[in-house]
Amino acid sequence: MDIIEEIELKGHIIDSLILPRVLDTIMDLKGEFEILQLDVGKTKVDESYCKIRVTGSPELFDELERLGAMLPKKEVKTAAAPKDKVLPDNFYGTTHHPTHVFLDGGWRPVRELEMDCVIVIEGDKAVCKRQGLVKKGDLVVVGLDGIKVEAPQRSRAPQDIFGFMSSEVSPEKPIISYIKGLAREMKAIRDNGGFIIFVVGTAMAHTGADEALAELIRMGYIQAVFTGNGFAVMDIEKRLYGTTLGMDKDTGKVLKRGYKSHLAAINEVWKAGNIRKMVEKGVIKGGVLYECVRNNTPYVIGGSLRDDGPLPDTITDVMEAQDEMRRYVQKADLCVICASMLHGIATGNMLPSKVKTVAIDINPYVVTRLQDRGTTHALGMVTDPAVLLPQLLTELKRLRKA
Amino acid sequence: MDIIEEIELKGHIIDSLILPRVLDTIMDLKGEFEILQLDVGKTKVDESYCKIRVTGSPELFDELERLGAMLPKKEVKTAAAPKDKVLPDNFYGTTHHPTHVFLDGGWRPVRELEMDCVIVIEGDKAVCKRQGLVKKGDLVVVGLDGIKVEAPQRSRAPQDIFGFMSSEVSPEKPIISYIKGLAREMKAIRDNGGFIIFVVGTAMAHTGADEALAELIRMGYIQAVFTGNGFAVMDIEKRLYGTTLGMDKDTGKVLKRGYKSHLAAINEVWKAGNIRKMVEKGVIKGGVLYECVRNNTPYVIGGSLRDDGPLPDTITDVMEAQDEMRRYVQKADLCVICASMLHGIATGNMLPSKVKTVAIDINPYVVTRLQDRGTTHALGMVTDPAVLLPQLLTELKRLRKA
Amino acid sequence: MDIIEEIELKGHIIDSLILPRVLDTIMDLKGEFEILQLDVGKTKVDESYCKIRVTGSPELFDELERLGAMLPKKEVKTAAAPKDKVLPDNFYGTTHHPTHVFLDGGWRPVRELEMDCVIVIEGDKAVCKRQGLVKKGDLVVVGLDGIKVEAPQRSRAPQDIFGFMSSEVSPEKPIISYIKGLAREMKAIRDNGGFIIFVVGTAMAHTGADEALAELIRMGYIQAVFTGNGFAVMDIEKRLYGTTLGMDKDTGKVLKRGYKSHLAAINEVWKAGNIRKMVEKGVIKGGVLYECVRNNTPYVIGGSLRDDGPLPDTITDVMEAQDEMRRYVQKADLCVICASMLHGIATGNMLPSKVKTVAIDINPYVVTRLQDRGTTHALGMVTDPAVLLPQLLTELKRLRKA
Amino acid sequence: MDIIEEIELKGHIIDSLILPRVLDTIMDLKGEFEILQLDVGKTKVDESYCKIRVTGSPELFDELERLGAMLPKKEVKTAAAPKDKVLPDNFYGTTHHPTHVFLDGGWRPVRELEMDCVIVIEGDKAVCKRQGLVKKGDLVVVGLDGIKVEAPQRSRAPQDIFGFMSSEVSPEKPIISYIKGLAREMKAIRDNGGFIIFVVGTAMAHTGADEALAELIRMGYIQAVFTGNGFAVMDIEKRLYGTTLGMDKDTGKVLKRGYKSHLAAINEVWKAGNIRKMVEKGVIKGGVLYECVRNNTPYVIGGSLRDDGPLPDTITDVMEAQDEMRRYVQKADLCVICASMLHGIATGNMLPSKVKTVAIDINPYVVTRLQDRGTTHALGMVTDPAVLLPQLLTELKRLRKA
Repeated sequence: MDIIEEIELKGHIIDSLILPRVLDTIMDLKGEFEILQLDVGKTKVDESYCKIRVTGSPELFDELERLGAMLPKKEVKTAAAPKDKVLPDNFYGTTHHPTHVFLDGGWRPVRELEMDCVIVIEGDKAVCKRQGLVKKGDLVVVGLDGIKVEAPQRSRAPQDIFGFMSSEVSPEKPIISYIKGLAREMKAIRDNGGFIIFVVGTAMAHTGADEALAELIRMGYIQAVFTGNGFAVMDIEKRLYGTTLGMDKDTGKVLKRGYKSHLAAINEVWKAGNIRKMVEKGVIKGGVLYECVRNNTPYVIGGSLRDDGPLPDTITDVMEAQDEMRRYVQKADLCVICASMLHGIATGNMLPSKVKTVAIDINPYVVTRLQDRGTTHALGMVTDPAVLLPQLLTELKRLRKA
Repeated sequence: MDIIEEIELKGHIIDSLILPRVLDTIMDLKGEFEILQLDVGKTKVDESYCKIRVTGSPELFDELERLGAMLPKKEVKTAAAPKDKVLPDNFYGTTHHPTHVFLDGGWRPVRELEMDCVIVIEGDKAVCKRQGLVKKGDLVVVGLDGIKVEAPQRSRAPQDIFGFMSSEVSPEKPIISYIKGLAREMKAIRDNGGFIIFVVGTAMAHTGADEALAELIRMGYIQAVFTGNGFAVMDIEKRLYGTTLGMDKDTGKVLKRGYKSHLAAINEVWKAGNIRKMVEKGVIKGGVLYECVRNNTPYVIGGSLRDDGPLPDTITDVMEAQDEMRRYVQKADLCVICASMLHGIATGNMLPSKVKTVAIDINPYVVTRLQDRGTTHALGMVTDPAVLLPQLLTELKRLRKA
Repeated sequence: MDIIEEIELKGHIIDSLILPRVLDTIMDLKGEFEILQLDVGKTKVDESYCKIRVTGSPELFDELERLGAMLPKKEVKTAAAPKDKVLPDNFYGTTHHPTHVFLDGGWRPVRELEMDCVIVIEGDKAVCKRQGLVKKGDLVVVGLDGIKVEAPQRSRAPQDIFGFMSSEVSPEKPIISYIKGLAREMKAIRDNGGFIIFVVGTAMAHTGADEALAELIRMGYIQAVFTGNGFAVMDIEKRLYGTTLGMDKDTGKVLKRGYKSHLAAINEVWKAGNIRKMVEKGVIKGGVLYECVRNNTPYVIGGSLRDDGPLPDTITDVMEAQDEMRRYVQKADLCVICASMLHGIATGNMLPSKVKTVAIDINPYVVTRLQDRGTTHALGMVTDPAVLLPQLLTELKRLRKA
Repeated sequence: MDIIEEIELKGHIIDSLILPRVLDTIMDLKGEFEILQLDVGKTKVDESYCKIRVTGSPELFDELERLGAMLPKKEVKTAAAPKDKVLPDNFYGTTHHPTHVFLDGGWRPVRELEMDCVIVIEGDKAVCKRQGLVKKGDLVVVGLDGIKVEAPQRSRAPQDIFGFMSSEVSPEKPIISYIKGLAREMKAIRDNGGFIIFVVGTAMAHTGADEALAELIRMGYIQAVFTGNGFAVMDIEKRLYGTTLGMDKDTGKVLKRGYKSHLAAINEVWKAGNIRKMVEKGVIKGGVLYECVRNNTPYVIGGSLRDDGPLPDTITDVMEAQDEMRRYVQKADLCVICASMLHGIATGNMLPSKVKTVAIDINPYVVTRLQDRGTTHALGMVTDPAVLLPQLLTELKRLRKA
């Protein structure tokens, strides 16, 4: 049941590894190819063009399309969802690269793009939806006809910090130099009115990095905070009792029963109603969430199975929490993930590939997971975000004065 | 506002480190002590007794009580919860050690004990509840009067596998010898009709360890499975398409677009209705969840923020998922956690200290987190559960024949 | 001071990523290129050819040559070493890929090739030498003229276990399937009279994997063992006292003073003279080194700064130890590195790229370090070698019977 | 062959865990005990006293002695070493705690104490020696008679930074607060003319932390540097070519062939003769080793198996390198280990327990290995030393001004 199609590739297809990956994939999936035409850009600014006749399985064409191969231009096909949350067979699963569908004779961009979702056609619009939001009768895109994915191409410009992405994930990198690059990037984004998301884990509270984080919010460098119940409780516990999970914020000494101060902090929020009211009543006078409330910076607290309490502000249904995060993800220019595996990966799953992403973690596994998304815009730093943030702050202050 | 009380310690208080920890804690928290009486067991089977006059803060007495110090016997005190989910001030936060309250002139055991919860008095019963289930008017235990905690004591018996617990977490341990010990333990528990919970993460599907896991279920060695949406999907994806997250189950080669087979597996479950129906309809014919359905072994799939889909069987509300897991946790004799950080820690948080717990993970951090719960019944193994499970299975078969 | 040269590329240069990497490198190093000729193999068995005019710095041509670009054929150039251990300026540093020099009108292979060394011309022979062995007056190859490096090309054959190499290093791989592949590979090598080196670290003794290792030696699957003083002492200590570094081999319990049994084991070897004599005198009757002596399998014990003792057999001068390892490295068909960072990386540095290499470690960092050597023959497994080895042994026995 | 002895314990034996550990050990090793006398210090400043009759194996008494139990006072026993490097049977292996021997009717301190060595009696002096330095006929201490070890006791003073040692090794600690504590400690030591050793690994060069390190030397905060060939070469390579192992110091981009700059740096040192001459000739004008030469700060470069080159300054014989490090270890007041596993552990093995030790590494395994030495003076920080050092420097400058 092999398919034969002529596919086309355009752009910087050789040094952006598009052509090699296409040939590699054909061989991996036991297809055959014949190169019909190959016009190579003679110098580095010229684009190249290649036409290849490919014989192979449907899975092979699936992979090729994902790599940016254009199949012959045809109208996009859809099928109606048979039930709520049930997709038609052969549905098209999205990538996080910019995608267009050929609809009514023209290419339409897919809106609110996110990877591993489906495309629903609504009138003359194409919208990306997660499976759980698909309703019976929705016209879901199926097959590969009429779909164009813009795979990222190697930049011809001099390298910025995100040009370093190709290098391996390792603690043996010039971190000090990277911090300066990140500060420049953040300043440039803010000078242009851009949107920066910080995703933060509990280590940010334990280590004392919350001070720097709070100041970044005050200075206007953070437009949304994603975190979990653990960090949120500790951020409040620290102001109320000087501890995080019962660990003294200065000495690191842990009172085992000090865990109770964690539960007591949760109870204080319930007594006040929620975090915003707690701040408004003056119960706490500092911290990351305090600054969020004071500076109208939205925060999303996504629940997890290991939560105590949880806080009234914590969204315990994980799909609802995802949808709340989705509201901000599409606006983002930069996303900085600090010491957060669960929330960091969850955010990474929803980010379009055009959003610049920096993952900072002491654990190389987390950085690899986040960086390995085939984008030109991800930078991983294996270092301690707790010690990095104060230096990032110092650098941003220096840039501001200059 | 210092308190002065005479506390008592009984049992093997010296070599079980109870007395030293008590003195240590008094000094750490800037209290003073005078030892009024100390009768030391002269030989290793004799118990010891110590009476100490302590002066210090309420926090100090909080810590001492947790260490097993008995305060003078008084009736337990309660206060009514002012609102749903709001605790009275000075509520008592539980440990996971066996606990009694002195009520109506007698010591009553606290039921369904779990750490970091509260105790509610219902008639002549004391029940442990998580904060979210406390209703307005519930009589919540406050203060420390009338509470007795049985801190674990050093076993006088020759060591079983759980006697190794005191050693540091490290891959440099006689793993081969530990596997035999674990097999003996599992066989003994099953011969007595005991209850074994396995908590499993996605690595169990990726690596091929699911074959051994499925056989353990068939052989009757697993009474409940806790897992997440990721593992559950992969377990089904593997039967339908031979991949896990698009990675070929034999070669490990990843088709990037193969991710679609993950989404397709989710869709197949939605089409069938749920996992049970999928098995009953014969859509899948093997795997861990298939064996669970066939052998009436209950499974709990707890949702997380990074889930795709999720499956209809996945409990997306994390507090509901916790409560479903709670149904089995109290019955457990042994809990084996394999390559599961989120679900493993969540389970660990709910386990009473009497439940023997084995945490097996390639990542020492996970093992440390799970083992560091002050119990005499936790064993951590830093090794690859994927390679360990087949050997555990072989050993169990050998023991059965013998 | 830019150079202009026409370079040539031949072979499967597109899907083996040679052409893309060449263009990428030119742009990175701010060179310019014009593609003069590009004949692309139309199907997957056809070779391609490309001629490019490149303008750029000497560093750029350095990189291109390493990628397999052929510079115009010229006689190789040399310069005399000015002093012992001092190289002439502009010396050529080797890769670990097969290399030829153009000498007296013909291409001569470079013997005893190893990366990061230099090439010395001796008569009509080209020999690879480490800097420390270069003598005053040696004719050391300089510049890039007359040097041809065969960069590895993508195999056209169906994949064997080493075809999986391109996938990322992760514990989430089908380990069970890989073990079978490795067993097949080892059997095939031994059936052809090949040479297998095992590099082993201390964890192999601690965990109990030494039993399987000893049996692999008895069965003839290991032709040389590289290890350190630590493993060697523990291997003997275990036979004499049942401990490794004082840790009981069955319970894992550590007697702190048990460390003395480590020192005592060292002393016993000194009393016997060395390990061979200890075996011959019957002082020890089993273990890895015992089997080495009994089966005439050579072993190299390379010293390190943290050694106790060390043993009389331990080579305390690290350069001498390297040279002893070099004697076996050139003969190897397969090198299996188990839980050994220092000795594993040291061996990796010396292996020609044609030697198949398997790195097995619970620590992904070690595996990445070893795999990241640009070869098509390296396979990394993030798993516990202690649990893997017994299964490898079982699999090899099964293959033998079949 | 059981021994019966009455042992004595003195000091803060309960809360320093000495008595509990003694009882625990007796039970572990299947001994019996009867407590003959126990006088407990009634308040926290009073010392306690305990006399116990113990029945058990020689190994048991070995362990007890190490825990600080005093055996009845007897003259120390010795035996002559039968050959160079061969110890008499039943030799006494040292701990790293202060130790005295009872010789000619008085307690003599053991000089140049180091763990896992032996004690040689020379006239009325007791000297600690590593096995390799023992000569035929040396009088080596044997057995346990007449040996007194001072196990560390819990400090009664308010806690300094090293009082935090009991807490687990984890990245979730108040690092920001610890940096301040370390700076105060370093300043206090320097104000008293103390001696600080820094042990540094290659990551210090890669990441850019070498700038801060160089300034600490200039400011007089480092009295000796221990490192390896890798760091030393990179420190020079960076000044000559702006790279470390071929990685650009600003962008982190790695030129594979850039590795040659590593070899070229080695060659430049050989051309100059050694590092000192290179500095004196003005070939390099900055860096850590440059500052060492300029400020007469001694450095020891200990060789390892994976070294390239190595440099003329690198001590390739590991035992000679150890002995060179030993010259400084005994003088140290503080030892700071940054990102160095091999050299860090080697140093840790030689440090007396009285030397305050701080291990800073992004890898918790390294920190655990270094901290787990039973001393009250070790502090482990799981963080990135590269980002920590600049902050430590800022803090020291601030303290100086204040």
